This record gives sequence, structure tokens and C-alpha cells, in this order.
Amino acid sequence: MKTECYPQMKLYRIYNPAFCIRQTGFSREYEKHYEGIFTQGSGYFHMRGSYEEGISYENQAEEYMRMPANVTIEKPHHTVSKWGTYIPGITGNHPLLHEELVNLPYAASFEAEFNGIRLDMSTDCIHNMERILDMRDGVLYRTFQWKGSENTTIHGTYRRFISASRKNLLVQEIEYKAIDGTCALTLYHDINRQVKTNGYEHIIRSEKTVQDNLIMLSLTTDMQDEAAMISSVFTQKGTFLGNTAEDKCILHTTLRQGESIFIRKLTILSGSKDKGGLLSPTAMQAQLEDAKAHCDTLYREHQTVWDAMWERAHITIEGAPADQQKINFAIYHLLRCQNTENASTAICAKGFSGEAYFGHYFWDTEIYLLPFYLHTTPEAAKRLVEFRIHTLPGAQKNAAAYGYVGARYPWESSGEGEEQCPNWQYADHEVHVTADVIFGLWHVFKATGDETLLQKAFPVMIETARYWMERVEWRQDGTIHLNGVMGPDEYICICNDNAYTNEMVSRTLSMTLEAIGLIKQKADAVYKAAGLTEEECEKFALCAEGLRILTEKRQGVIMQCQDFDNFEEPAFETIWKDRQKPYGHFVSQERNYRTKALKQADVLMLPYLFPNAMSEKQITENYRYYQPYTTHDSSLSAVVHGIVCSGLGWLEEAYHFFQTAASIDLDEKRAGAAEGIHIANCGGLWQAVIYGFAGMNRCYEEKELAFTPHLPDAWHSLSFQVCHNNSYYRVSIVRKGQEYEVLVQ
Amino acid sequence: MKTECYPQMKLYRIYNPAFCIRQTGFSREYEKHYEGIFTQGSGYFHMRGSYEEGISYENQAEEYMRMPANVTIEKPHHTVSKWGTYIPGITGNHPLLHEELVNLPYAASFEAEFNGIRLDMSTDCIHNMERILDMRDGVLYRTFQWKGSENTTIHGTYRRFISASRKNLLVQEIEYKAIDGTCALTLYHDINRQVKTNGYEHIIRSEKTVQDNLIMLSLTTDMQDEAAMISSVFTQKGTFLGNTAEDKCILHTTLRQGESIFIRKLTILSGSKDKGGLLSPTAMQAQLEDAKAHCDTLYREHQTVWDAMWERAHITIEGAPADQQKINFAIYHLLRCQNTENASTAICAKGFSGEAYFGHYFWDTEIYLLPFYLHTTPEAAKRLVEFRIHTLPGAQKNAAAYGYVGARYPWESSGEGEEQCPNWQYADHEVHVTADVIFGLWHVFKATGDETLLQKAFPVMIETARYWMERVEWRQDGTIHLNGVMGPDEYICICNDNAYTNEMVSRTLSMTLEAIGLIKQKADAVYKAAGLTEEECEKFALCAEGLRILTEKRQGVIMQCQDFDNFEEPAFETIWKDRQKPYGHFVSQERNYRTKALKQADVLMLPYLFPNAMSEKQITENYRYYQPYTTHDSSLSAVVHGIVCSGLGWLEEAYHFFQTAASIDLDEKRAGAAEGIHIANCGGLWQAVIYGFAGMNRCYEEKELAFTPHLPDAWHSLSFQVCHNNSYYRVSIVRKGQEYEVLVQ
Repeated sequence: MKTECYPQMKLYRIYNPAFCIRQTGFSREYEKHYEGIFTQGSGYFHMRGSYEEGISYENQAEEYMRMPANVTIEKPHHTVSKWGTYIPGITGNHPLLHEELVNLPYAASFEAEFNGIRLDMSTDCIHNMERILDMRDGVLYRTFQWKGSENTTIHGTYRRFISASRKNLLVQEIEYKAIDGTCALTLYHDINRQVKTNGYEHIIRSEKTVQDNLIMLSLTTDMQDEAAMISSVFTQKGTFLGNTAEDKCILHTTLRQGESIFIRKLTILSGSKDKGGLLSPTAMQAQLEDAKAHCDTLYREHQTVWDAMWERAHITIEGAPADQQKINFAIYHLLRCQNTENASTAICAKGFSGEAYFGHYFWDTEIYLLPFYLHTTPEAAKRLVEFRIHTLPGAQKNAAAYGYVGARYPWESSGEGEEQCPNWQYADHEVHVTADVIFGLWHVFKATGDETLLQKAFPVMIETARYWMERVEWRQDGTIHLNGVMGPDEYICICNDNAYTNEMVSRTLSMTLEAIGLIKQKADAVYKAAGLTEEECEKFALCAEGLRILTEKRQGVIMQCQDFDNFEEPAFETIWKDRQKPYGHFVSQERNYRTKALKQADVLMLPYLFPNAMSEKQITENYRYYQPYTTHDSSLSAVVHGIVCSGLGWLEEAYHFFQTAASIDLDEKRAGAAEGIHIANCGGLWQAVIYGFAGMNRCYEEKELAFTPHLPDAWHSLSFQVCHNNSYYRVSIVRKGQEYEVLVQ
Repeated sequence: MKTECYPQMKLYRIYNPAFCIRQTGFSREYEKHYEGIFTQGSGYFHMRGSYEEGISYENQAEEYMRMPANVTIEKPHHTVSKWGTYIPGITGNHPLLHEELVNLPYAASFEAEFNGIRLDMSTDCIHNMERILDMRDGVLYRTFQWKGSENTTIHGTYRRFISASRKNLLVQEIEYKAIDGTCALTLYHDINRQVKTNGYEHIIRSEKTVQDNLIMLSLTTDMQDEAAMISSVFTQKGTFLGNTAEDKCILHTTLRQGESIFIRKLTILSGSKDKGGLLSPTAMQAQLEDAKAHCDTLYREHQTVWDAMWERAHITIEGAPADQQKINFAIYHLLRCQNTENASTAICAKGFSGEAYFGHYFWDTEIYLLPFYLHTTPEAAKRLVEFRIHTLPGAQKNAAAYGYVGARYPWESSGEGEEQCPNWQYADHEVHVTADVIFGLWHVFKATGDETLLQKAFPVMIETARYWMERVEWRQDGTIHLNGVMGPDEYICICNDNAYTNEMVSRTLSMTLEAIGLIKQKADAVYKAAGLTEEECEKFALCAEGLRILTEKRQGVIMQCQDFDNFEEPAFETIWKDRQKPYGHFVSQERNYRTKALKQADVLMLPYLFPNAMSEKQITENYRYYQPYTTHDSSLSAVVHGIVCSGLGWLEEAYHFFQTAASIDLDEKRAGAAEGIHIANCGGLWQAVIYGFAGMNRCYEEKELAFTPHLPDAWHSLSFQVCHNNSYYRVSIVRKGQEYEVLVQ
């Protein structure tokens, strides 16, 4: 890549391909994908990387009924572009999909007209269109040439960022320069109300006022959440004026050859779930005024925050710039979603970059995301644990709805912890999430030693343990079973004694027993409040012990579930016609549910999470048994396999899985980010480097930090920072012949 | 019951409680139930027994989104009344429920106003309201006193029937008599367009014209089906006149004390699926004129047809008038649904008396309904088989959609044979319906010897056999399995080698092999067209043999499926708090799916269908094993158990099940017919008498008609008519001490 290609692109920083994602030229096929890729965010709010002016034939307000289905087989209606502006916590209620994150009015809206023709990247008038997302600071750039009639040409430059220092501020900078002829421009500043969420109208009230260059919009969703936006534009060439016919602010201007106009648009957002509640119009205006007063330093203060985040979270790979870009991409989105302030929301499956999975929260939080935050910004990890504590009442309601005592965490969580999954097979049976939640909070406790947090989480541990006591089968022969579950592998619908689930329930009951001991000793009030009886504790222990027994066959091969051997062999050769596409595209669910085909790692989740618990030989046996059956149709599969392979020292396989995982969002041809990026996979990519290639041990398995690196051939060295026991360590791993030099400072 | 109670009720026939269902007084709780019970029909169209004038607070046009759910747990929105006018075959497309029978505009609409107050059965002005459905001729009667102000009272009498001789004609007769004071009446004749189907608007175009006393309405559904109605009223007291403001025809009249007004309303319906297509307005007017010209004899010609139907189908029980009424109720609805003319539709799960199950066609057709028609009006049974022949292309598409060759009949069929079931667990796994279809057509062939029909059905047999060849698992050890199915018991979601399914597939493959032999011999062209290879036939035979093996444990107890023993024991005592309500109301699906609780007969379907195939001892063992686990939550369960008990000579149990089955629709307290009557259970009640108490053998098991009666204690005698081998036999069974005298003539 040559930086010379961008003479007109006014970058805040020098172009660095390892930290930038570039799109060249408009293409119907990939636009939506780039909108996902280019999502910007501050933790407080997020915005997909759509064009300010939209695409003329793409109706963002189309109404349709999105059916609940696996996202891999769903066909969303919008074909080229999907705007998305999301404030986590501002939700609506869809009749089929339940609580969903509401797509708010498009605050970035800015249209332009040149010689009577509206700006539209999909038209022939546009040349040399390029976009760059700079992941160092989350600034999105666009440049293009716009040909008018009679030898007139404009050069356009767009920049925008969501401020990391003022987290509810959107900053947009637009410049038009007449590079040929005299150009008459009409510019439209707007907050565009014509949006839907998954084709559904959640906004039951909205009010918009347009006055001078100021637009204010407030709205209420069908879940009574409120949001407001206030937006102004400033330019040296006249004033935008409110126009009632257009319901926008408009400016007419003429640029002679060589002349340019620079516009700055500032927008303040607020939502009723903000810590202090919805901001008043006056307060929002004041914030806007303040931003305007500091407009020259807005970028610098924003950059300072991003620099600090990267300082904590960076991973530096020497020898493989392409891989550097891939891991940077993952870290960028993880940082964008990072939230150290508010525990009332977690991080949804798409990291607030699209409407698939409807803004629900999954086990992704504990298994795929937590490690990154825990080892880079522990405060963010604690907020994720606190989210589960805060949603305990929802989990209790959920248990009661299924006919049990205690707490049962939902497969797809609402902001209040109630089950939102629109497909019963997952909602009803993927109960391992309840154990995953405990595992997550134990992980945070082990890494931070935060006993205050453990005390707050104690009721979560006890209530989930109580749920398990009713959920398991205490058979008359003394054995204990966990029947009717779906493991991580979603291609077996309902099974008994799923190895992963049993192991997680057993382990988390042991953790709970350990916590009981600790709390009893150190926090008597907390212990007493739980109302535990000795009989209960004995039962927890009995179950922890009883469930440990995993069905084993052959030498060390753990059976995924009872009767796994009896499942039919999948006919991959005849059915899976295009291996570039998921197997699930080619097989009916009915057939899939009766074969051994795996969607994702299931038994192999165990050596991934607990590498010390199995011998290398046993891991190898299990890998060899399950890998041929695994389709990796789930985006959560590749990273797990990669980490297991790294642990075995199988570098070629590990590197292959790293590349596969990176391609899920980054391979333009797959256009996998169209409905939003895969934030869990981003967390997994970080783990693939840190747990996988760097071979960092797990803090719940060993107390002291240790590394057993296996770097891919092309990587000369790997350096990063990790937080452990509340201290930051700089880790450097350098290849020295067949060995590695590991420095931890 | 005293006939003297109805001095004013002008019955066409003398009131006979055994043939009448009576409702006394309005009640919010039971109205919708009686609307279902009182459904009238001609095979061509059907209408729920709603009041002509509706109920003022009950909005029939409410829009809402009905979710796909088990009908037992679904909560429809309309609470008191639901109009329903259905022409089988006139359908719409619901986004969630798929093809559904469209509720057409309410042609029976007739409103009245007395002293400025609209007629409404739910108000205090109405006294002594009574309704009677006479099941001998399907006439619905209503009488009431209607108090106005200042000592004025009207006596109202309503009669209506759907003509059995002119099957697209609705006849209504209304009489008002001033029995106190002078009464000013305003009458409104209408076809009410304000209707929805399951809360959904399927009518995308409708045109209504109101001229003089004539109303015409035509419409198009969102599946491009068309329907039209034309309606006129006639009275001796003036002329109804079209009123544009009201969009109705109106008549003002004044009755002095003792005076009365008699109104006759005639309505002609037509639909685009009629054999000759939608009738032209002219043709419909001509039919209306003709009906008007014969209005004095309309009832008599209608009655003649009903008399003939009852002659063929009657069952006479001496000694138990209440039971006589129950079986009459079942036969009435079966006769109302009878259709000897058109094979483009079958009989939907609610017998076109409500919107539950959305007008879809189930295995009910073959297992529960066919025997009644086969032995009373074989032509109607043949139409049902022809429906499956006609929908073979749909079944082929269905097989292809699941990734198989051949034909796979849908669990819930559209008019074209494609899968409509909105719940995947049934649609995907309840594959036994494909075998049931073959069993049904074989049953008809065995009872009628109709080789022409068998030839037409031959491709259905071959194509379904081909489907099974791909659907079963041919294991390397030589065993053959049928995995991933749901048996009739819908409380086990997915299992392997379900006994009922395996047995039905095996048997129907044997039937197919027998048919192949016959067709090869007698209809070479038909045989050749099937393109069978010897290899294929060998495979059919191998599978028929291989699948026969049912998992057996203990002495003769057939295991419902592989691993049934491993399912958890249901905790009925703690969970099932009110045995008057289905168990399914109290248990979460998740828990239910992992226990031995049965929704309905599963293994016991086998001795019900094939009593000769098992010894009495084995049947007893199986009954004793499964009965305690069976909740009978399905309306299809009681009759099967009753018939099995009859076969064992367990009269008390058999009679108990007969009563349970009869109460499903008839017990006012259960209000079970609110969403429509259970037509399969009606067929089952007939079977409970004929196969059960009369002990008739199955024509596919034995060639000659034979009876082994076991009459309930109260029944002195039982007589009926059955058609066998194209001849009608009068059967009389009379109790003689401990024995029975059986006469077959």
C-alpha cells in the first residue's frame, strides 16, 4: 500500500496501513459490510460507517417483519446500506424478536446538491472514492471527486469521529473544494428520522425542531425509553438556515475554481438510561456550545484518550504487518465497546455495530470478551460482572418461568436479565450460560482479588447453584445427570450430559463452595443474607462431584453427550457443496440435528478454558476425533481451535485458525460484517494471540503469570501489555532460533 | 328437558333433545364456545354460530399479531365472540402462520334498533334468550324478549341454515313481534366487511355495492384468491333501502302490539376455487333469484339432503339419551364437513369452525376422519385420498426442501401440499404423517377395492417410499434406523426409532410392495411411468423388514423410542396442580421434553390401528406401562385409549374415555370449542362406538365384516349402518343378558 495515493486525504495522523482499513470505490456488494467494519463508538454510543448522505435508492425506513431465525440463514431486506445509531440501553419491543436495541435517527445526516444533482456515491458522477478508518483514533475519512456538468468538479473530504473524551459527542468535518469550474452547491444539515430497526418502527413519539442552524430531536420508544439529539453546523461561508419545507437546515453557496468550504457539524446525544437520566435541552445546548468553543482542540483531547487505551491494549507483532492490522482491528472494536462507567448494559453480540442478534447479550461476555478487558482495563471487566449482578432479579424471574427456584441466566439477555431469545431451542436448552456467568465472575475475582466484588456477586453464585439443584436429575441409582441441554455446539438440539455443560456446572459449583468458605470467614452479613443451610452446601458438593463424570469412550475421548456415538455420520461430501459457505446453508436443520456434524467447538472448549486439566495426549485424541466433524459455522469456533492447537504446539493449524478467525470480519469477499462485526471473535482473536501464540497461562489455574510461546513462523517478535493482580506488565517475546526470549517487566 | 319450555320457538321439527344442543341465556364466558359448537356448513362453506348483530363491544376487526404457538397455550385476543365465515380453499398468507383459511366478511349480518337502542344479547334489555342447534338438519334457532322503554317488548325469533341442496346458499329467517306496546324498529341488512383472520388483514381488495335491498361484495385475498357474496332481504312490511351513509340496507317499521314482521335474508357465496371458478355477478343474481322463487320449499329440499345423510350415518343408542346426543353431535359436524365433490381441499383441524390451526390439514384426515366417511359415504373418503394425490407435487417440493428425493407429506398441509406448520419441531420431525397418508389410501382401497383410485395413488406410494429410502439410516452393521423424529406423542421432541413411526413406515412400505405387484399385473402403463427398478423394490423390502424391529424391554412392552427408559420420571404430583387443565399448562416445555410424560397415545396407537397384531396380554402390558405417563393433553388421545380398552373388554375405562372425548367439545365449563370444534375427535367418537363398543374389525386386517361388541352398561342396544365393499349393511347389536345378539343385514 502506498501512502502517496492519498495526497488530498487530510489525515490527522500519517497513514499507517497496519492501523487503517481502506475501502476503494463504491460497490453495491460490499457497502453494508464496510458500514459494519467502519463502526465508530465511544462506549456510550455507536454509529455504523454509512455515508452522511445515504444512497438514494436505499430506503432506510422500509417496514418489514424480520423473522426469528438463525442469523446465518436470515435475509435482511436492505441490500446495500443500513444506517445504525445505537445508544446501549435504549431499546424497543419487537413482537417476535423481543427487546431490541433501537436504531436511532441518523444524526450524521448531511446531504449535498451540486448542479441540481444530489450527492450519491453509487452514481457515475463520483470518482476515486476512498474511505479509511484509522483505528488508532477511530476517525473515519472519505474523499472523492464529484463531476458536475460543463467541466465542473468538486473534491470532497469527510472526516468524523465519536469523541472519546466527550462520549456523547459526534464530530463531523466536511470540506468541498472546486477543482474545476465554478460550482453551485446546496448543503443540507439534518437529523434523519426515516429509520427503522430490523424493519420495525419502535419510535412511538418524536419531536423535531429546526431553527437557524440548530436541529433538535427527541423521541420515546415503545419501551418508554427516551433519547434526544441536538446538532449544529458551522462554516466560514454563510449560515445554514432552517427550512420548514425540507425540515432541514440549508445553505446555498458557490465555489469558484480553487475555492473551498469547510463545515463542522457537532451533535450531542443523550438517553434516558444515562446515569443522570436524559439531559435537558438546555444542558444539551450547553454541551454543544462548549464543544463549539473548544472545536479546535476536540480532536486532540479525543486522541489523548485513544492513545491511552492503545497504550494499555496494544499488541505489537514484528514481521507480519497484515497480521498486525488484523489484531489491531479486533482491539479497535473491543476498545470502542469498552465501558468503564455503566454496568446497566453489557456488550451485545454485534458490539453495537448492526441489528443482528437484536442487541441481546450472550455468553460471549464471559467466555470471549472478559479476558481482553480483564487484562487491559479491569474496570471494564468488572462492569461486565456487575451487569450480571444487576440482572440477577431477571435471572430469578427466568428460573421461575421455567418452574425452578434460584437464578437461570438467559441465553439472550435483555438489559434486565430476562430471556429474549426468539428461538426456543436455544432459550430453553442452552443452559450452560448460567455456569458461564459464574465462571466469568470467578475469573475476574481470581485476576483482581477484588473481594468487594465477590461479596456483591455472592447472591448470583448461590442463586444459580440453587437452580442447578432443581435442574439436574438425581437418579435413584445415585448418579446425577443434566438432561435436555444444548451444549455450545448448536447442531445437536437436545442432549443429555453434555460434557462442556456438566464440567462447567461442576466447576462453578466448586467455585461457589470456595466462595462460600471465603465469604463465611470474611463477610458474615453477606453470608447470613444468603440464608444457606448446611444441607444445601452438601448438596452443592455432591452435585459438583457427581456431575464430573463425563462419558468416556476410547482412549481419553470425551463424549460430547450421552449417545453421541449413536448420531449419524454427516454426509459432508454430498451435501456441503461450497466450503466457502457455512455447512448450515446446505443442510436442513432436521437432518443436521441427527448427525455428528458440529457447528463449533464443544468438547474442545474444555482444553481451551482449562488447558491444565488434560494431558497433551488426551487433548490430541479429542482434537483428532472432533475436528473432522466440526464445520466452524459459528464465528466462535476458529479461535478456540486455534488456541488449542497453539497449546499443542501445532503452529501451522493454529495460524490457519487465526487467519480464518480474522477473515470472518475482514475478508471483503465474505462481507461478514454487513449485519455488524463479530465482537466475540474480536475478543477471541486477542485470546488467540495472548493465550494462544504467547501461551499465557490462566489466572484461575495458576497464580503467577507465565508464558509458553509458540509464534507463527513469520512473527519475529510479539510484545504487549497485560494487567495481572492490578499491575501492568510489559511482555516481550522474541524468537531466538528455535527458542523464545520472554521478558516480563 | 321439557319441550314445553319453547312455546314461541318455531322449530321446523319437534324439539328432540338427543338431536339438539341448547344454550340458555347470554354469558361472556361461553359465547365463543357456542359459536364453535353451533357452526353450520354445507361442505362448500361454513359459518360459526355468531349472533347476526354481533356484540357491541366486541371488535371483529381488531388487528394483532398471533404468534405461532401450541394452541393450548395461545391466547387469542377476542374474548367473547369471533365471527367466522369460511370457504375451504379461499386462503391468505400470514407472515408467521403461513397459508391460512380466510375469515370472509360476515354475510349473516343483520342488525336491529328498537327505541334507538341497538340489539345486543349482552345487554339488560334482553330476556329469556335461548338458542338451539337442531343437528338433524343443521338449523340454528334463537328466541328472546327485548324490552324497550315505556312497557314495550318485542319477541324475536331467528332461524338460519346453510342449504344442503344449494350448498352456496345461506338462508336466514327473522321474525319480530310486538308483544307489549307499540314498537318502532329500524332494521339493517348488511354484509359486514369488518373482519380479520387471527387478527390479520388478508383482504387486499374489496368492493361493496348497496342498491335497494341488494348488497354485493367481492374481494381478493393476499394469495390472489377471490370470493364474492350477494345478499337480499324480503319482508311483507315494506322494502329495505340502500343507505350510503350506513353502507347498509335499512328499513324503518312500527309494530303495534300483537303485530309482527317476518324477514327472509338470502345470500349466495362463491369463490375462485369453485370447480367452475368464481361465479359472475349475473350468475350469482340468477341463483339468488331462483332461491327467492323457491323460498317456500328451500327448507324442505335442504331437509331431504340432511335426512339422507343421517340415514347413512346414524348411530342409534338405546338406553342412554345423553350419549345419543354426544354421538349425534360428532356425526353432525362430520356430515357438515362432508364433501363428495371437490378434492382440492380436505378437512382442516377445526372442521372450518374456527381459526386455530389456521385451516391447515393434518394426519387427522387419514387416522381420525377417514373411517367415518369410508363406512358412511365412501365418495367423501375418496375425495380425501384424492386430496393427497393432488398435493403430491407439494409433497415432492417439501422433500426437496429438506434435501431428499421423493415425497414428504407436510405435517400441516396447505391446499397445495406444502408445509405450513409454523413450529419447526413438528414440521421437521413429525414425519409419520407421510406413512399415515399411505395407510389412509390403503385403507380406502381395502374397503372399496377401487383399483382406479389405487392406480391414481400409485405415484404417491412410490414417491413416499423413495423418500424413506433416503430418510432412514442404513447403518454399517446392517441395521436400519429412523432417527430424529417426533412420534404422535408431541411431548418428546426428537427421538430415534419411534415405535409408531417405524411400524407405520414398515407397514406402508409393505403395502407399497403389494401395490407394486398389483399394478405391475393390471396397469402396465402406470407401472412403467413410475420408473421403478428392481433394486429399488428390493430396498423397499429390506427397509420394510429392517424397520420392523421395535426396541423391546420387559415382557412385550414396546419402547416408545430408543432410550425411552432413560427419560426422567414426570413429577405430576408437584407440577400438575389442576387436573382439569392440561398438564402442558403447568410445565415448561424444556422440562417436559426430558421426562416420560406423554401428551397422547403413541405406542398405543398400534393396538388401536392393528388390534390383530398384538396379543391381549401384550396390549395389556403396554397399556399398563404407558397409561400412567399419559396426560391426554391432546384431544386425539382419549378416543384411542377408549378403543384399546374396548378391545380388552375393559368397559368401565372405555366408557370413561368416551365421556372424556365427548366432553372436549361439549362440556360447557371447558368451553373447548371456542376456537372451533375438534373434528378429529368427532371422527374418533364415531370410531369409539363402531371400532370400540361395536367392536368392528378393520377391513385391512380381515376381509369379512365382523363385530365383537362390548356395550357400556347403560346401553341396551346399538344400531347403525356401515358401508363395506360398496354395500351398506344395517347392524344391530342387542344386549341379551351377558351376551349380545348381532344382526348384520
